[in-house]
Parts: sequence; structure tokens; C-alpha cells
Amino acid sequence: MAGIKVHGNVFSTAAQRVFACLYEKDIDFEFVPVDMKSGEHKSEAFLAKNPFGQVPAFEQGDLTLFESRAITQYIAGQYADKGTALTCPGKPMPLLLVWKEVEAHQFDPIASKLNWEIVLKPMFGMTTDTAAAEELEAKLAKVLDVYEARLAQSKFLACDCFTLADMHHLPNIQLLLGTPVKKHFDCRPHVSAWVANITARPAWAKVLAMQSKQ
Amino acid sequence: MAGIKVHGNVFSTAAQRVFACLYEKDIDFEFVPVDMKSGEHKSEAFLAKNPFGQVPAFEQGDLTLFESRAITQYIAGQYADKGTALTCPGKPMPLLLVWKEVEAHQFDPIASKLNWEIVLKPMFGMTTDTAAAEELEAKLAKVLDVYEARLAQSKFLACDCFTLADMHHLPNIQLLLGTPVKKHFDCRPHVSAWVANITARPAWAKVLAMQSKQ
Repeated sequence: MAGIKVHGNVFSTAAQRVFACLYEKDIDFEFVPVDMKSGEHKSEAFLAKNPFGQVPAFEQGDLTLFESRAITQYIAGQYADKGTALTCPGKPMPLLLVWKEVEAHQFDPIASKLNWEIVLKPMFGMTTDTAAAEELEAKLAKVLDVYEARLAQSKFLACDCFTLADMHHLPNIQLLLGTPVKKHFDCRPHVSAWVANITARPAWAKVLAMQSKQ
Repeated sequence: MAGIKVHGNVFSTAAQRVFACLYEKDIDFEFVPVDMKSGEHKSEAFLAKNPFGQVPAFEQGDLTLFESRAITQYIAGQYADKGTALTCPGKPMPLLLVWKEVEAHQFDPIASKLNWEIVLKPMFGMTTDTAAAEELEAKLAKVLDVYEARLAQSKFLACDCFTLADMHHLPNIQLLLGTPVKKHFDCRPHVSAWVANITARPAWAKVLAMQSKQ
């Protein structure tokens, strides 16, 4: 089988989802840095890989994929027997479908915008919209209340195994842990244990190590 | 197998996704209206079905699911041999994964907000934020440029068959067709043909007919 290339940026939360997946699966890949500062992701060559001009893009022989959660699902299915399963083996899958969608539609829209306001804007010398950040923080707290109830019943979101549904949260959670928003994870015991558990995974440590090599 | 109940509202775009899927699959279901005006979706009884307090919720015996795209994926997998396949039979699935995620992360966030501004706000006696609507319209046009290029290569988004990736677009597209934004679909020949094709599906006519019964 042809080698895998991931075109992306080590600081992109979407690219990190794909790196985490490949490390969990113990699959070799070539990381191809995309120079986003110079706008390489909007170049014709990159748009041929992802017409929306966003990282990451995944290549394996003739196959080119984009959208991080599509790539992780493809990898999980294609390499089902390698590394971490990332699915609920021997269990019904509907709850994995539900909690993957919860990450995508309940958690990510809030967490991404909050990270933009309180992590990325200051990094780029821009001013945080404090009112917007507070509103997002309150919304995140409500979402985490639902997570707390769910994680009181189940070790991980979809079942008692670590799955794609948990893994997809890692990049945004990691950024939020470096901010005062960390308190919302800490004050909910089941959420706190889950965060400690998923951020301690060796595969995730490898994703973070990619940043220090830059 | 126990009967299927869908708790929702005929005007909810998320509920419409699930209705469309069940009609495509020719599966009987009981529609249980949720009175959103009186806040029934925030009641304890409904929160037990969907802890995020949103419609729809899906029940089949002991199984309760939420998040419309998780429900449609569950139905498509569970009833693979019934009605319309909604997947790419005999074809590689990665492009179905990609285009389902494109709907969820590129199309829906823009189309939903645009419908809120130009369809729902006027309906509720609220004032459209014209600047926001114009910005969203410009973003939608760029997304549709990518769709036009894709649909020049393929009859439907994921492959030459109608799949979940196409179906998930229907509720937002239907609303936009009743607004001046329709021109962005009409002026792109492949997008226009695709829209005509998917909105003409008998299953979708049944979803729209549910509204006139209210």
C-alpha cells in the first residue's frame, strides 16, 4: 500500500486530529508542512488537494481526502485491526455515531470560537472580544454539564473504550487547558478524569512533540 | 423489531433530515410532535431523550438517539438493504465520509445562519442583520463554487448515487430556494441540476407534505 502523506500544520487543531489518529493506529506517515503564513493553503497546488483551502489534506497513492473527521473515520475503518480500535468493539455503534456528532456540533463550534478569542487572537496581537468570550464560556459550561452526566455512566463518551468521539476533542481541549477556562473541566469530577485520561495518551504526546520540533 | 418514534417538529431542519431518511428507506415511523413554542424541548421528559434539548430525538425500543446526522447514519447502516441505499454501493466509501463532513462543516454553518437571518428572523418579527446576511451569502457563493466543480465530475456529491451527503443538504436548501439567495444555486449549472434532482425526490415531497398537515 502506498505511503501516507499528511499536508498540514502542527498547530492546526484539525491536522492534530489526523496526526493523533495515525499515532493511535501506529501507522507511519510523512508530514508535509504547509506554510500557512505565506498562504500556501490557498495556492492552486494545495487547492487541488483540498478545494476549501484548509489543512489538513491526506494523500495515499491516488486517494486524496480532506475534512479531518472524514480522514480519521477512513483511517479507523481501513486499519480496523491495527493499533487502538477507536471504535466500540463488540458493542452497538449508534452511540459512537451520536457522540461523534456531539463533538462536531455541540462542542467544537463553541470550543473553536472560544480558542479563537482567548488563545489565538492574543497570539496574533489581536484584542479578545471579552463579551463574546464570556458568552461562549457559559455555553461551554452547559455542554460540559451534559458531558459530566454522560461520563458518570460511561468511562468514555461512546462506550467504555477510547474512540474517535473522545479523540476528536483533544486539540481544542489541549488549548483550553492553558487558559482560565480549565476550571470548567476541573470542577466536574467525571469530565476532569476523562480529560486527564485522554490527554495522557502516548499518541497525543507524540502530536504535541511535533510542535516542539518546529 | 420495536417501532420507531421520531420526536420533533415538522419545521425543524434537523428533524426533516431524519424524516427524509426514513421515507427514503420506506420505514414506518410514528411522528411525535414536540411543542417548541411552550418549551417542551427543554422539559425534563424531553431532556431524557436529548440532553441538549434539541429536536429531533429518535426512539426504537430501548435505543434513544439524538443528533440528526447520527440518526440518519444509524438508519442507513441498520436498514442497508431497504429502500434507497444512501451510500455508494460497490464504490470506495472515503468520498462519502468527506462530503458528509463538507455538508456539516462547510455548508451547514453558513446556510443555517443565513436562513436564520433571512427566513426565520422575518418570520418571528425580528430584524435581519443585512451586513451579516451579505457576508454569509458571499461565503455561501464560494462554497457553491467548490460544489459546482465537484458536480461537474460526479452526478451527486460523493459518487453517482444519491447518498446521505446529498440528503443532509435538503432542509437548508429548500428554505434558501424561497429567498433571493436562490440565484446562487440557479447560476451554477451543475449545482442547479443537482438541486432540481434532489428536491424532486418523492421522499422529500413527503417531508414537505408533513408541514401542510400541521
